Amino acid sequence: MPEKITLNTYGKSNVRLTKVTRHVDRHDLTELSVDITLTGNFERSYTHGDNSNVVATDSMKNTVYVLAKTHPLDSPESFAHHLAEHFVKTYAQVKGAEVSIEQSAWRRIDVAGRPHPTAFESAGAELRTTMAYFGQRDARPAAHFIQGGLAKLLVLKTTDSAFTGFVRDAYTTLPETRDRILATEVSATWTYNDDDRKPDYNAAFTTIRTALLETFARHKSDAVQQTLYDMGIAALAAETSISGIHLLMPNKHRVPFNLRPFGMEFENDIFVTTSEPSGEISALIEREK
Amino acid sequence: MPEKITLNTYGKSNVRLTKVTRHVDRHDLTELSVDITLTGNFERSYTHGDNSNVVATDSMKNTVYVLAKTHPLDSPESFAHHLAEHFVKTYAQVKGAEVSIEQSAWRRIDVAGRPHPTAFESAGAELRTTMAYFGQRDARPAAHFIQGGLAKLLVLKTTDSAFTGFVRDAYTTLPETRDRILATEVSATWTYNDDDRKPDYNAAFTTIRTALLETFARHKSDAVQQTLYDMGIAALAAETSISGIHLLMPNKHRVPFNLRPFGMEFENDIFVTTSEPSGEISALIEREK
Amino acid sequence: MPEKITLNTYGKSNVRLTKVTRHVDRHDLTELSVDITLTGNFERSYTHGDNSNVVATDSMKNTVYVLAKTHPLDSPESFAHHLAEHFVKTYAQVKGAEVSIEQSAWRRIDVAGRPHPTAFESAGAELRTTMAYFGQRDARPAAHFIQGGLAKLLVLKTTDSAFTGFVRDAYTTLPETRDRILATEVSATWTYNDDDRKPDYNAAFTTIRTALLETFARHKSDAVQQTLYDMGIAALAAETSISGIHLLMPNKHRVPFNLRPFGMEFENDIFVTTSEPSGEISALIEREK
Amino acid sequence: MPEKITLNTYGKSNVRLTKVTRHVDRHDLTELSVDITLTGNFERSYTHGDNSNVVATDSMKNTVYVLAKTHPLDSPESFAHHLAEHFVKTYAQVKGAEVSIEQSAWRRIDVAGRPHPTAFESAGAELRTTMAYFGQRDARPAAHFIQGGLAKLLVLKTTDSAFTGFVRDAYTTLPETRDRILATEVSATWTYNDDDRKPDYNAAFTTIRTALLETFARHKSDAVQQTLYDMGIAALAAETSISGIHLLMPNKHRVPFNLRPFGMEFENDIFVTTSEPSGEISALIEREK
Repeated sequence: MPEKITLNTYGKSNVRLTKVTRHVDRHDLTELSVDITLTGNFERSYTHGDNSNVVATDSMKNTVYVLAKTHPLDSPESFAHHLAEHFVKTYAQVKGAEVSIEQSAWRRIDVAGRPHPTAFESAGAELRTTMAYFGQRDARPAAHFIQGGLAKLLVLKTTDSAFTGFVRDAYTTLPETRDRILATEVSATWTYNDDDRKPDYNAAFTTIRTALLETFARHKSDAVQQTLYDMGIAALAAETSISGIHLLMPNKHRVPFNLRPFGMEFENDIFVTTSEPSGEISALIEREK
Repeated sequence: MPEKITLNTYGKSNVRLTKVTRHVDRHDLTELSVDITLTGNFERSYTHGDNSNVVATDSMKNTVYVLAKTHPLDSPESFAHHLAEHFVKTYAQVKGAEVSIEQSAWRRIDVAGRPHPTAFESAGAELRTTMAYFGQRDARPAAHFIQGGLAKLLVLKTTDSAFTGFVRDAYTTLPETRDRILATEVSATWTYNDDDRKPDYNAAFTTIRTALLETFARHKSDAVQQTLYDMGIAALAAETSISGIHLLMPNKHRVPFNLRPFGMEFENDIFVTTSEPSGEISALIEREK
Repeated sequence: MPEKITLNTYGKSNVRLTKVTRHVDRHDLTELSVDITLTGNFERSYTHGDNSNVVATDSMKNTVYVLAKTHPLDSPESFAHHLAEHFVKTYAQVKGAEVSIEQSAWRRIDVAGRPHPTAFESAGAELRTTMAYFGQRDARPAAHFIQGGLAKLLVLKTTDSAFTGFVRDAYTTLPETRDRILATEVSATWTYNDDDRKPDYNAAFTTIRTALLETFARHKSDAVQQTLYDMGIAALAAETSISGIHLLMPNKHRVPFNLRPFGMEFENDIFVTTSEPSGEISALIEREK
Repeated sequence: MPEKITLNTYGKSNVRLTKVTRHVDRHDLTELSVDITLTGNFERSYTHGDNSNVVATDSMKNTVYVLAKTHPLDSPESFAHHLAEHFVKTYAQVKGAEVSIEQSAWRRIDVAGRPHPTAFESAGAELRTTMAYFGQRDARPAAHFIQGGLAKLLVLKTTDSAFTGFVRDAYTTLPETRDRILATEVSATWTYNDDDRKPDYNAAFTTIRTALLETFARHKSDAVQQTLYDMGIAALAAETSISGIHLLMPNKHRVPFNLRPFGMEFENDIFVTTSEPSGEISALIEREK
């Protein structure tokens, strides 16, 4: 019973780029980490060590820096798409290219109340993310699509979060609560419509991020699931250029500290911050077609 | 245009368990980290905050410890399967349960040449992994399957690795080489046959790990792809109870240090160890049916 | 030749606390990670397993939560001092207590232009730090002192950084440069004056952080050392309640990408972001007495 | 009140080196990460941006690779000493050099029962460590000293660990126990005698590591402190070339899982693995002079 390669991919991960764009009155700063994954006619490198079709991953790395020289990097989405298209159009053996980018957040340092033109501080660990896929005309999946997203968005609400009415059985010890801390690290991925109008990726990012944050803040939560759903619905309502959004929201538990042994009462005030285990809640919410 | 939930899952991650099994002459030690993901009729918790179908993730956590009390933990595969089956058989609203486990490696401390009965040292950062899926009778995907695996297996060969004949174009600066270091961190996942014979998971793990390691060591490599493929073929040849194996082998580059400015020659001896960027090579190799 | 214990300490690390302070119109949120280290008469627990003097580290953990219940947590410095004093005053065998705290940064979520009263987002990975030491009256070192600080403050300037005139010898390949990126992750620790006036720790933190940031932004740098020094001098000038400041500034190199093989010129625009190796520059700057 | 620099150091961190030493019948593999810290006459680079005394950290990095070319790397201690001496003897402005090295553990892959001559697998996350200080003749501290060490040595004993008789007061909730799991991650640093006999660093490392491990395994522990002390005493007894040893042993708690709500008894079998908070026990044990 012989074997076959059912699936193969290769690429380069964590190609880290800093670009400075020099304007007359200021510099712009862009910091990206790029992952590239190719599919195509590479089977003979596996089966015969024949590399004649293989674009070296070192060359992929070079390509990121070379294309960044001339591309404006106006959005990570447009650069990801540009890179993906490049690999498919340059190399006949590449059937599909997937390019994922994480963009770090920098903001200008305030000096005496004014943003400095050439000095920056980190705007936090939150990442703006994107994934662009570009396939040959006859390729499966679809010829191309672009996703935007964000990751490591830490949020916490100190009230308006309940968890009641869940299954109680022999494995249940968690008490019901009408008022708890809800803390999570949001990862969101949204897919842009597959049509001819090119969206404004930066405006869409801001719109969606605001919808997610404001809904999280205002929500009267009966379950993390419900908060996640309402956040997704709000994002879809706010931004018409996307067809769906996937949200992953781990429940980063704050556990009430038992003050009774010390003659005190827990009054929703003193919590143990925990990293593990964590609940993991996710859903993909899409417009009906 | 209304929205719908296309996909939803929830569960608990990083449930960390240490079990001591006390025999007359020795203790056995098992350390696991368990992730549980459920699919099923949970949509109303998203859309209405109605938790009546929701098994709290805290209860999932309890279940891991409670079931570990009576289960022998003879293999992570059997415990993962046991847990997954439990969730589907206990709760009608659970359509499918996926349980992933990472098992840490411990070995007995040698005292005066003998393994100590109750004292252990870490056997390294390498992990034994498993994923068991159990679905309701009518569920899609298949009713159940079990995967074994390993992760963080760091290996390095100082010779018998070439990389030549790849595409040379305007983006290429990497020289061809007939003798380089090949270093990688192997992640492997294999799927057990879907038949009635229950495999010996521990024996299979050892057989596959040995096949992977020995093939890596002996291989005359013309590409990481080729080494990966031959490792996969060797695993399939050595272990008949599996139907396929997926391998992911990032190329953890050791870059020759340029000694010329210092009046010396690089003689395949002095390398810069790097973490990023890394090549990423993967394939799924399956028996033909 | 017998042995003796020259030094011993013990304590508890990473006690993680979230406190919610409920006001009528809003909640305040404080998140701390606390480390406690005690010195004192604990030698017999080492030499004889006699724990009669040992305050269990689990009790130290409890103490953090119990004291946080009644302490306002108005500043990490005051809470660290309160904890350190508690251990020395409660237990005669404790000769000195060192309490270090890292405070995570949270800010209110903006909803329709207004800060939400009970919903928060992370303000970044930067940490506010403190260390308070409290010793018995006759203890060495000094009876008590309090340090403030910050860590993980990522900053980057795209110009006004030169590095020239350094030693050139057989080990040198780095070219001189009059214009490079200077990126660093500042760690700062300052020591409050040992006098009777209790400083406003929060105001001092803001004053010092602003002095560090503004000086970094405005500096015409001839060396990371010089930038570090001027930042320290600015902090001492801005905040009279401190006697000295220690700065650690790793040089997180951005390496020019060589575009020549691709027919392009490097114009201070395309850089490789690196994590390692990093330069490590530090100094302690104190007022003369 | 003017300011002065009380202390300044600079250097390079995480210089990562892989060296292959090619013998006729086999290759040897050494992987090091090197940190260098210099003290000396560098104040004018801080105060005036005058770099004329500054050895660029990039040159320090080069030096590691260049000196590794000709040094046998027979032990990390000898290479650290060689590097430290180099910096002090080469540059008059360098008053002292501290070189710290972490050596990763690799072992040969077993192929058909025989160690392969050129293929290696990681021997675990444990690190061999060293720190060598070399000062100018008139420098303070002492002209030179060499430390060996290890880090990330994970060990666990399932019995023979008690913790009783500790302080019970209003902050205590921990029950006494006569039988618990003791798990720790040992960091050890030992100092070689300051005399003319050059020790066999590799033999000493093996001797000390074995003494630490065997004592941990055999110990009837009444406190982590006592286990730590007896491990230190054993190391000093086994290896006469060292004058003292510092041990740091965080208590990586395994917390009994409360099985009572589920109608079962905890029988020292089912534990929650935790990462935080952790106890932190340390001592320096030296021979009396």
